[in-house]
Amino acid sequence: MKTEVTPVRWLGDALTGYLELLDQTRLPLEEVQHRYTTHAGVGESIRAMIIRGAPAIGIAAAYGVVFGAREAAAQGLHPAATFPAVRALLAATRPTAVNLFWALDRMERTVEATAHLTPHEAIERLHAEAQAIYHEDIENNLAMGRHGAALIPQGARILTHCNTGGLATGGYGTALGVIRCAWDQGKVEMVYADETRPYLQGARLTAWELRKDNIPVTLITDSMAAFFMQQGQVDLVIVGTDRTAANGDVANKIGTYNLAVLCHYHKIPFYVAAPCSTIDLATPDGAAIPIEERSAREVTHVGERQLAPDGILVRHPAFDVTPASLVTGIITERGVARAPYNASLAALFA
Amino acid sequence: MKTEVTPVRWLGDALTGYLELLDQTRLPLEEVQHRYTTHAGVGESIRAMIIRGAPAIGIAAAYGVVFGAREAAAQGLHPAATFPAVRALLAATRPTAVNLFWALDRMERTVEATAHLTPHEAIERLHAEAQAIYHEDIENNLAMGRHGAALIPQGARILTHCNTGGLATGGYGTALGVIRCAWDQGKVEMVYADETRPYLQGARLTAWELRKDNIPVTLITDSMAAFFMQQGQVDLVIVGTDRTAANGDVANKIGTYNLAVLCHYHKIPFYVAAPCSTIDLATPDGAAIPIEERSAREVTHVGERQLAPDGILVRHPAFDVTPASLVTGIITERGVARAPYNASLAALFA
Repeated sequence: MKTEVTPVRWLGDALTGYLELLDQTRLPLEEVQHRYTTHAGVGESIRAMIIRGAPAIGIAAAYGVVFGAREAAAQGLHPAATFPAVRALLAATRPTAVNLFWALDRMERTVEATAHLTPHEAIERLHAEAQAIYHEDIENNLAMGRHGAALIPQGARILTHCNTGGLATGGYGTALGVIRCAWDQGKVEMVYADETRPYLQGARLTAWELRKDNIPVTLITDSMAAFFMQQGQVDLVIVGTDRTAANGDVANKIGTYNLAVLCHYHKIPFYVAAPCSTIDLATPDGAAIPIEERSAREVTHVGERQLAPDGILVRHPAFDVTPASLVTGIITERGVARAPYNASLAALFA
Repeated sequence: MKTEVTPVRWLGDALTGYLELLDQTRLPLEEVQHRYTTHAGVGESIRAMIIRGAPAIGIAAAYGVVFGAREAAAQGLHPAATFPAVRALLAATRPTAVNLFWALDRMERTVEATAHLTPHEAIERLHAEAQAIYHEDIENNLAMGRHGAALIPQGARILTHCNTGGLATGGYGTALGVIRCAWDQGKVEMVYADETRPYLQGARLTAWELRKDNIPVTLITDSMAAFFMQQGQVDLVIVGTDRTAANGDVANKIGTYNLAVLCHYHKIPFYVAAPCSTIDLATPDGAAIPIEERSAREVTHVGERQLAPDGILVRHPAFDVTPASLVTGIITERGVARAPYNASLAALFA
């Protein structure tokens, strides 16, 4: 089952078309679409989290490069002339998710391969590459779903964190894609969605998306996960990742490491769904992954509503790193990697 | 140092005075006081969490009994005649915190002791008993602070959960009283305050209270505690308790058990500050402690702002139980109890 949820969509042809994004800052109360036609606009949409989720960010950035190429052509330039600036702007939006850089690398190779073509031909090639990134993401999610669903027992009560679904990808999901596939196979009894403070991706996005697809979901606050594990009501945890290092250390939304420790204590499997585009063999371990620190306001406010007193000190690491030793398995579109991850992850790319 | 924070205050004499409560639902943005002159009003203030925190609830309920006695006298009745109904109403407000029942038991014994007195004399006696509960709470907090501060190393970075400070007590604090005392001794480098979803007592109350008293505080979301422990930035955790069983199992605000598991994994001391009024030797273990399930709306909304989609399933256990095996020490006004707790807690009451 593919979800009805479409966070990112190209409409029209390569030379005159536009990118449509579902504004994820307005969910779950409003479904608002925005149109983008410039690389700077796409960059701002990523920075402002109108689109978020590692795979979805990569897809949006790839389309951003297409707009950069069109802007170059409008000035009579070849896309290669402006690509470094376009890349720099898009790369500066979010530091942790490696898909952004993976997609930009792929678009850079395409730009290089179009040096002998006219600007318009180059735009067509870049658009085709962005479309390929988009479609491959969905195909990879479906394959990951099948590999992951094989790990899920009948009647499973699955806890997940943040949003890793259609909204975070081309339209199916990584961790939520595995859950979606297992649901299609009749294996899922309940999904527990952590609300995922401070940005509330679980409450706002995962709850909305699962409800839209009629998959049973119970919303809990992040600190309740331990309670439900203690009560024996959680059979496994599946999360996504923004970047997984060569040794299997997993960077993901803040709170993921907390869940991994809880799973370890309660002897519950802790799985990570990681498309190969999020596995970064060039990063040896988690200590080398930059952790984005986001604004205090996302902690002290929900929308316009102020929660905390004025002038309070706040920390807001947006991600954490779970050591490979706490990871039961890494589910990819090419199969499930197990410890030792240095060998098993490298083998996926061999 | 006593805090300036006063959540509960009796003004005037026994026969015509009133109870003033700081409305904790309006903090940190507004400091609003309400006056109460009826036992039903006090009951509603507890239910609505205008006053919260196990010791503070006990104090408020004791004053509620004074109002019940005045209402009886106004009808020409002795307080003993209406006490069962007054008690029933107050006891039904919150099920988990044992201080409520402890305070009501103490007031019940006072009612019984006034059978030979006139209604007005009985009111005077009941008021004196409520005042004693209030003043003893502050004295006990100060003693607990001294016992607890001896456990705190120089330069400590202390993480706490919920609000256990002046706002939760007569005006000094249990876990936050220990921190306050250690701060006075120059030992505290930083307090990390978990925001404590869903009700945000950490963000709204602890952050406000520590800032007011110029104790350094950093606000984090609940799921960040694991991250800061992993980074070596937390030296110990101290929390309060709503009820501690005879075997040392600790019921406290949801999220406490999560912290205890994290401390166990990171080899960080996990202390509980428990005035003897919260230790319930009649309850053998945590399994016998009733856990209050509060409304879904406290999870799906912050104030009027809706976070989650309409009609979503929600769970909201307001407390959890930490097994005694994860508790490093229980700090009381009579000293620090260590495992095995059945013996050490019983010895405190011997």
